[in-house]
Amino acid sequence: MYVADPIPLSPSQTLSAYASPAEIEQATQALAQALQASAAERDRSGGHAAAERELIRVSGLLNLTTPRAYGGMGQSWEAFYRSLRQLAQADSALAHLYAFHHLQVATILLHGTEQQHEFFLRPTVQQRLFWGNALNPNDKRATATEDGQGWRIHGPKSYCSGSVGADRLTLSAWHAPTQSLLIGALPSNRTGVTIHSDWDAFGQKQTDSGSVTFEQVRLEPHEVLVLPGSTPTPRATLRTPLAQLILTNLYVGIARGALQQALHYTRDATRPPVGSGVARAVDDPYIQQRYGQLTVLVRPAEVLADVAAQAIDHALALGPAITAAERGRVAIAVAEAKAVAHRAALEVSSQMFELTGASATSARLGLDRFWRNARVHTLHDPIDYKLRDLGRHALTGEFPVPSSYA
Amino acid sequence: MYVADPIPLSPSQTLSAYASPAEIEQATQALAQALQASAAERDRSGGHAAAERELIRVSGLLNLTTPRAYGGMGQSWEAFYRSLRQLAQADSALAHLYAFHHLQVATILLHGTEQQHEFFLRPTVQQRLFWGNALNPNDKRATATEDGQGWRIHGPKSYCSGSVGADRLTLSAWHAPTQSLLIGALPSNRTGVTIHSDWDAFGQKQTDSGSVTFEQVRLEPHEVLVLPGSTPTPRATLRTPLAQLILTNLYVGIARGALQQALHYTRDATRPPVGSGVARAVDDPYIQQRYGQLTVLVRPAEVLADVAAQAIDHALALGPAITAAERGRVAIAVAEAKAVAHRAALEVSSQMFELTGASATSARLGLDRFWRNARVHTLHDPIDYKLRDLGRHALTGEFPVPSSYA
Amino acid sequence: MYVADPIPLSPSQTLSAYASPAEIEQATQALAQALQASAAERDRSGGHAAAERELIRVSGLLNLTTPRAYGGMGQSWEAFYRSLRQLAQADSALAHLYAFHHLQVATILLHGTEQQHEFFLRPTVQQRLFWGNALNPNDKRATATEDGQGWRIHGPKSYCSGSVGADRLTLSAWHAPTQSLLIGALPSNRTGVTIHSDWDAFGQKQTDSGSVTFEQVRLEPHEVLVLPGSTPTPRATLRTPLAQLILTNLYVGIARGALQQALHYTRDATRPPVGSGVARAVDDPYIQQRYGQLTVLVRPAEVLADVAAQAIDHALALGPAITAAERGRVAIAVAEAKAVAHRAALEVSSQMFELTGASATSARLGLDRFWRNARVHTLHDPIDYKLRDLGRHALTGEFPVPSSYA
Amino acid sequence: MYVADPIPLSPSQTLSAYASPAEIEQATQALAQALQASAAERDRSGGHAAAERELIRVSGLLNLTTPRAYGGMGQSWEAFYRSLRQLAQADSALAHLYAFHHLQVATILLHGTEQQHEFFLRPTVQQRLFWGNALNPNDKRATATEDGQGWRIHGPKSYCSGSVGADRLTLSAWHAPTQSLLIGALPSNRTGVTIHSDWDAFGQKQTDSGSVTFEQVRLEPHEVLVLPGSTPTPRATLRTPLAQLILTNLYVGIARGALQQALHYTRDATRPPVGSGVARAVDDPYIQQRYGQLTVLVRPAEVLADVAAQAIDHALALGPAITAAERGRVAIAVAEAKAVAHRAALEVSSQMFELTGASATSARLGLDRFWRNARVHTLHDPIDYKLRDLGRHALTGEFPVPSSYA
Repeated sequence: MYVADPIPLSPSQTLSAYASPAEIEQATQALAQALQASAAERDRSGGHAAAERELIRVSGLLNLTTPRAYGGMGQSWEAFYRSLRQLAQADSALAHLYAFHHLQVATILLHGTEQQHEFFLRPTVQQRLFWGNALNPNDKRATATEDGQGWRIHGPKSYCSGSVGADRLTLSAWHAPTQSLLIGALPSNRTGVTIHSDWDAFGQKQTDSGSVTFEQVRLEPHEVLVLPGSTPTPRATLRTPLAQLILTNLYVGIARGALQQALHYTRDATRPPVGSGVARAVDDPYIQQRYGQLTVLVRPAEVLADVAAQAIDHALALGPAITAAERGRVAIAVAEAKAVAHRAALEVSSQMFELTGASATSARLGLDRFWRNARVHTLHDPIDYKLRDLGRHALTGEFPVPSSYA
Repeated sequence: MYVADPIPLSPSQTLSAYASPAEIEQATQALAQALQASAAERDRSGGHAAAERELIRVSGLLNLTTPRAYGGMGQSWEAFYRSLRQLAQADSALAHLYAFHHLQVATILLHGTEQQHEFFLRPTVQQRLFWGNALNPNDKRATATEDGQGWRIHGPKSYCSGSVGADRLTLSAWHAPTQSLLIGALPSNRTGVTIHSDWDAFGQKQTDSGSVTFEQVRLEPHEVLVLPGSTPTPRATLRTPLAQLILTNLYVGIARGALQQALHYTRDATRPPVGSGVARAVDDPYIQQRYGQLTVLVRPAEVLADVAAQAIDHALALGPAITAAERGRVAIAVAEAKAVAHRAALEVSSQMFELTGASATSARLGLDRFWRNARVHTLHDPIDYKLRDLGRHALTGEFPVPSSYA
Repeated sequence: MYVADPIPLSPSQTLSAYASPAEIEQATQALAQALQASAAERDRSGGHAAAERELIRVSGLLNLTTPRAYGGMGQSWEAFYRSLRQLAQADSALAHLYAFHHLQVATILLHGTEQQHEFFLRPTVQQRLFWGNALNPNDKRATATEDGQGWRIHGPKSYCSGSVGADRLTLSAWHAPTQSLLIGALPSNRTGVTIHSDWDAFGQKQTDSGSVTFEQVRLEPHEVLVLPGSTPTPRATLRTPLAQLILTNLYVGIARGALQQALHYTRDATRPPVGSGVARAVDDPYIQQRYGQLTVLVRPAEVLADVAAQAIDHALALGPAITAAERGRVAIAVAEAKAVAHRAALEVSSQMFELTGASATSARLGLDRFWRNARVHTLHDPIDYKLRDLGRHALTGEFPVPSSYA
Repeated sequence: MYVADPIPLSPSQTLSAYASPAEIEQATQALAQALQASAAERDRSGGHAAAERELIRVSGLLNLTTPRAYGGMGQSWEAFYRSLRQLAQADSALAHLYAFHHLQVATILLHGTEQQHEFFLRPTVQQRLFWGNALNPNDKRATATEDGQGWRIHGPKSYCSGSVGADRLTLSAWHAPTQSLLIGALPSNRTGVTIHSDWDAFGQKQTDSGSVTFEQVRLEPHEVLVLPGSTPTPRATLRTPLAQLILTNLYVGIARGALQQALHYTRDATRPPVGSGVARAVDDPYIQQRYGQLTVLVRPAEVLADVAAQAIDHALALGPAITAAERGRVAIAVAEAKAVAHRAALEVSSQMFELTGASATSARLGLDRFWRNARVHTLHDPIDYKLRDLGRHALTGEFPVPSSYA
């Protein structure tokens, strides 16, 4: 029942496939403002944000990365990441849902055949479908068994971001005979699929990242994107850098959003420190210095995220011929951006309070959500292994082994 | 109605004035365990912790610092601070209430006459009274007016830690003619006193730190501890270092408590990082290294807090003859400890999650409370001005000017 | 006698005005290698590097930023900064000389008339002149006096980078009547000019940054670039961001150079730590992690330096119409890059030894020169005031007041 | 020839075995001042400091830790470490020589029999002998062979601190049959011993830490302190924490010395930053703040070093009965202090220049020696493995395995 029915919208309310950059920017900004308005309140309540997911759907931005061939807007990933960052400043949980829809679109594009692109993406645009995932490759409890006519998926899956409220799901399931994963996609209302609203973290609360149970669920042959035992091409493994750069831009958005909220508060409400001798908090030398320090945490994260996005667009443009080394360079660019953004998000969201003073800790304002969101989300995969990958590459030239984290 | 009636307890349940260090340690430990059991739950609910305040009262530890002459246990402040740190590891909000009781006892001792010591402290021990405060000297809205027979206190006061549920309150009020503060003490049920349960921060939720309104409240002459226009002696101004070292030990307790919870979690529940090649999380080289880093954040804070406590006991032992320079050296020792503890509390409570992994962010565990508590409490006064005081002293030998912060 | 005679070179040895990017890159690389070969040795000896200055002159790269209208190569400042960074990796002292030549060319372009461009820059290209400076605006001891026919400059000037060995000098001199500076340019062998080889820092030793004494030196009217009492246009004040971005790229070059030397050493010579259980130092988990950490210090500095260079080129392209706000945005971009590069240079040049081990501290290798160079050069102007400028801008929108530092 | 003849001194010039703490303090201070006077100059020249070693010898402080039973002063190790720190503030290279003498005295005490204590230490006091070492256990090139009458030592040894100019040497040599080390002690002028003055680091230049070559050197049975194949007692392995705490106190001394020199310079010579609006550098808000930050780096290092020294004295007082766990707790206390001191020394010696300004980088002042000394000395053993030991202990309770580093 968490799956909202697709809402028929009049064309006037949504972006067309040929929207200009300015129109996209305007739609993103409008969506960000709408999310911002209730972000603190929804952080307190947690749970599923059905209405706000509809706002995202209505905006038309779900079509941003779908190629024009299937009715989408065919924008670059760099454009998508910038829109993501803008939404994440306002609400990094809903931005995560937005991003994971696009990640599943990318999954179809990178793993599927042209027929599958047509089969899955055309209706996605036409019916404004929202994608979620049950793909977590580190959870091997859900299994895939061939039954002559296709596949049966059985078992539970954790960390299924965007699953509650999704129309379509990507999934992975463990295939014991080949000791490898099958990857597929199906409608979320397929018989035997149960989506649990059991996500319970202290941050990123409304990411609908709970568990999904498969009870002998049919998966048709044309719904299989990757057969067990397949060796992925370097191009197919670009899905991971693409996902890691989603996390990166969420961190960057959190950092920038926290900095902006702090600036607003300091300007409007912070009293000059006792003994500072200045009349306004904005004139305090230490407050000025620390805002400078926070600025030089956030800016590098933004710039490196852009550089990495360009690397991804460039790599995708190379098509199927992309080599492992070309793919490796993308992974390195993304890892650099992610490590810098990780630190920026955590530091800014914690240090911001030195600059606002104690009154900004009122629960009413909910400004601690930036740290809680950053803290939960930056645990996706361990920063030290990301740094190790970067250091190893610098030392030996080895690229990170393609995996669900690198 | 938030003021709980003093509970008559049988002598067997509580520490005697002649309790041994081992008995004190045992009572502290028992109290800490009792608070720990419900700390996460009470952090979620917030509000006034009537039952847990009673546990503190029943323990007898409220008498720890009251001199034996008035029936108390006459322990050193170092002993008190150690007990505080132990409680703060379990629950830094309730530990704050415990500490602020002792701070008000110190206020009586440092500002009051011997008659006032007898008048206020004897019943405190005998009737197991719990003190709170309405003393915030930076809020000058509550005023004091002489009316021939004594004083009238009128107006609101903010940040009144421990006020809800207190039997007695210290207070300050602005005296316009002398442009200075009167300091006094009275029963919290005095006519015209209204204690509001309006504390609303995202951390240190159960510190009962809301506002108090005085509506033409009588303050008898013998309830005045400091008359407006008085110049405090260096000894009297020791109240601030004493209070600052309370904050310090709360920070240290938070840091140590967070570290311990993280260690428990890593040992019991953290899975080895993907790609680490180790079978247990405790064997991961980065997890080991980072625990080493957190250890060397917490240990210095503990040791410096002890050194500062010894400086305070030494300064108090000097009696009324203490010089401004002797007082200044105490303030420096406390400031050093506070700056180190500030950093330890924030860093450990945020970094702990790198070591536990994502599953430890379940709201059920409430482990984010350490950061929220640290974040709210470390905003009491700005760290940069503390560092400035330390640097100025190193440069010029100047001691911090005695104030409510230094 | 430190002023080397311009050396007539055959055209084949040097870059033409129409050199391709690849040829420029090749010439830069060749020069960097030549400087690298003797960098450690020359760091030990200090003093004036006459032969290496000639290598720079011979390379033709001194013409890189001179417009084609005057015979130069007319390259972008971004191209120049990249070449600077490459040279700085090898030898940040000689790179400084290279950069300060270009800074004086920019001084002519920004402050001078078209006639002065022609007068000063045409011979600079034709005769391969090397520029230095005696412009330090914070040293007001050298004075300018009008004498009817022109000006007399008298007094000493400190921190005159590139002065020893320069063919031409820019200078500033204090004009008491207007309480402002005159700025001019003249041949370094003008009567009364004495250049002292008295630079004595423990780093950046061969920057020829000693003092210059003017003994009633004539300055002809056409040699005056800025008359005392003039109000500079926003465009003219771009000289400071341009100079600050030179410092930035020197820091970035030092950071990258240190990182590369460390990587070489670890690969070739570092033994695996006792107790690490690995056979090669490059496989040590902590060494890998720390190289990752250093990488994410250096990369942001590089990327932000590029972004700032583009901002400068863009601002210069706006011509005389550039507004104070447009100029301000350039200053902010440069300040961001500089703050990040400052930290990268200091951290990498100090931390690199954790990764090489003790044997890399042999004086023979001279690897401490990176830290010494970074340490001396990053003191040009205080980082805290740079951060303050950034914070103030974030808080209030104010741009840094144009000065010799911002 | 580097071995200076023991100088017969009149008793009046030196501390007696019964010197009071005040006399010891006075002698230490006098020695520190004498070393300070030429420290910058000797850092420039490097090499063997014969005259300054004599100053140490004449002071009588070499007897500080020798028990009274053998004519020494029998002071605590805490007293020794404090004296070490004081000397290290002035000159951390000579302080290292001083400390390594005491480390060899401890080697005799921990490894030798009572007869050997008498044999080695009585003359050490009477003839004022200076000890150095050739003990580096990680260099196994020097071998020990039994020849019926005793042992033959043959081969080279690296990192032999204090060897040049020593009267006596401790040594270790690899015994192939048992795959373990022999430890012994002998006069440095024993036939076949050649001490090389080949130490060449860019810091800690005068520690005489070059190599020693043994050419079929006789070692008499009574000169053997540890026979190959012996299993050391926990007490004997206290030598390593004792040595590690020497390093720690050298780092602390460097940090404090650097801070003091910086304070002097800022007070006397630093000009207020351009644009600061203050008349004196000591009034600059950022300079004050940063001195506060440096203070809270140095103080914890000092306090933890004292705590660890007390742990060592306590452990030694336990005598032969000390358990592995008791020894382990000492190792942990020392590791905590060392990690904190490591960071303090590096940070203070690098950051100090932000507070003095550029003029303090004059090579004449030699203030970079603090960083160079810290940088070289902190590479003795890798900080990350120290942190790992601390983290592992926190996680599992395991103590560091006794070794030459832990």
